[in-house]
Amino acid sequence: MIVALAGGVGGARLAVGLAAVLSPQILTIVVNTADDFEHLGFAISPDLDTVMYTLAGVANPATGWGRAQETWNFMLALEQVGGDTWFKLGDRDLAVHVLRTLALRRGASLSEITRVLATRFGIRHPVVPMSDSAVRTRVKTDCGELAFQDYFVRRSCRPRVEGFRFVGSRKARVPAVLLRIIRSGKVRAVVICPSNPYVSIAPILSVPTIGAWIRQRDFPVIAVSPIVGGVALKGPADKMMRELGSAATALGVVRHYGDWVDGWVIDHQDARLKRVIERQGKAVLVTDTVMNNRSKSTRLAKRVVAFAQALGSGK
Amino acid sequence: MIVALAGGVGGARLAVGLAAVLSPQILTIVVNTADDFEHLGFAISPDLDTVMYTLAGVANPATGWGRAQETWNFMLALEQVGGDTWFKLGDRDLAVHVLRTLALRRGASLSEITRVLATRFGIRHPVVPMSDSAVRTRVKTDCGELAFQDYFVRRSCRPRVEGFRFVGSRKARVPAVLLRIIRSGKVRAVVICPSNPYVSIAPILSVPTIGAWIRQRDFPVIAVSPIVGGVALKGPADKMMRELGSAATALGVVRHYGDWVDGWVIDHQDARLKRVIERQGKAVLVTDTVMNNRSKSTRLAKRVVAFAQALGSGK
Repeated sequence: MIVALAGGVGGARLAVGLAAVLSPQILTIVVNTADDFEHLGFAISPDLDTVMYTLAGVANPATGWGRAQETWNFMLALEQVGGDTWFKLGDRDLAVHVLRTLALRRGASLSEITRVLATRFGIRHPVVPMSDSAVRTRVKTDCGELAFQDYFVRRSCRPRVEGFRFVGSRKARVPAVLLRIIRSGKVRAVVICPSNPYVSIAPILSVPTIGAWIRQRDFPVIAVSPIVGGVALKGPADKMMRELGSAATALGVVRHYGDWVDGWVIDHQDARLKRVIERQGKAVLVTDTVMNNRSKSTRLAKRVVAFAQALGSGK
Repeated sequence: MIVALAGGVGGARLAVGLAAVLSPQILTIVVNTADDFEHLGFAISPDLDTVMYTLAGVANPATGWGRAQETWNFMLALEQVGGDTWFKLGDRDLAVHVLRTLALRRGASLSEITRVLATRFGIRHPVVPMSDSAVRTRVKTDCGELAFQDYFVRRSCRPRVEGFRFVGSRKARVPAVLLRIIRSGKVRAVVICPSNPYVSIAPILSVPTIGAWIRQRDFPVIAVSPIVGGVALKGPADKMMRELGSAATALGVVRHYGDWVDGWVIDHQDARLKRVIERQGKAVLVTDTVMNNRSKSTRLAKRVVAFAQALGSGK
């Protein structure tokens, strides 16, 4: 089995490739839920939705969030009656928030309603939230500590980042399906998708059961750099790295993740960093990591899987 | 002061006329809330919305519910993910349900959030729910006792009606603004809008404070017949009357309401009933009661107000 850890767009796109290459019995996609929040009475799980929508082929390719062929009449009407409109909820997108909120209020777990929704979207691979209880990223900034979506959407990532806290992670309730996988001893590799190291991947690893599993593993961990040519293809990862004193490069990410990643997948644009990373004791695969269509996702996924297998057999 | 009691479309259309004729200091519109229900996690108040949307000029004239220029992408997406779609919620319409639900959950009363919403829609006249606590119509039918929207929307009023219950009416919490009006002694007339006698007007009167007020009044009560030429212009009032053994005519409504209405406004189409109704000791005004545009609403409202004044001075 292979477990992929994913945040939003980058994670979702690699998940699409991995799902094209690996069967639902082999691949499980574990998704960050620390961006989740309650807004307008809805339980909103941005990364779960991005992964689901992308796997289902209904994601909005332009925005990186929400659905394709979306309309905004709810938002327009909400503005007219004085509701909060800083977080955009499309008319089609609302359906998922409404059903999820209803299910949670009726006592279903986030993983249960995610499974139901994913099935209805025709997704065959398990998409599993990292936690069934609330874990919430708090961003320490020069404007004080902010709730994640306040920082990310309302303030458009403008405040200068000083650190992060993942409230609730120590008591996180790992979904039963993920616990079974962790305890099965059958996982052969973990793939860290090209998602934000600080606010997508770190929260997943902050869940004690998941973090301990990764530390005590007997399988390789492969990471795909979310920084390509010195920039994050989506989101504020590069800005965060600079603000936290890291170089906003693939090498900066390698150093940030440190010991626990065995193999790195970096883009051709960063080929010159291969040697330096290898000198840190890491295996490196240089390839095209920019996934701007499904076939590129599939091609990258194939290489990542082959890389993981090679590392696994060498271990 | 004049108080109008209103349900959905017919009530809303007369309210528009009354609002054009009477100042916000003079006219208060009290609206049935016994159709209200919780659906998909939303607190939905169909009659309040119909009255608000109609007063604001954003109602859908074709359906009698919901908003004009509506889109349905939320519903389409909800259907795709397996949600309940028997109760149609338009994309724009959702904004009101979301804000109302949020406000109620935060502890606001239905009358408070209604006031906020009405103000945001530019409505100057007080629109007041009959109760701040839940009153729910249950319809006794040949298919058993049904929740109102189950009977009305899901089953399209097909079951044969045997009676009604208004659960919660005895303990209904009359909004403070309505209590002040009732206790002020300043009301000069109550206008019963052409709304369904059984499921729009009866629930309002089933609230003890309101019912007792109407029984002990010193002002005239004027009713506009919701049955014109033997049919209800909207909704199942005529079908209900037949099923309950009443004649589905303006006269049937007069007999149903009985003693407590002093003056009746009936349509030209029913002019032949004038004498019979007068013989029951009622004043009768025959006029055009079909309000298919704003100017007709205003014209009818003017006549209703003059009729009420004439009856009031004669009392």
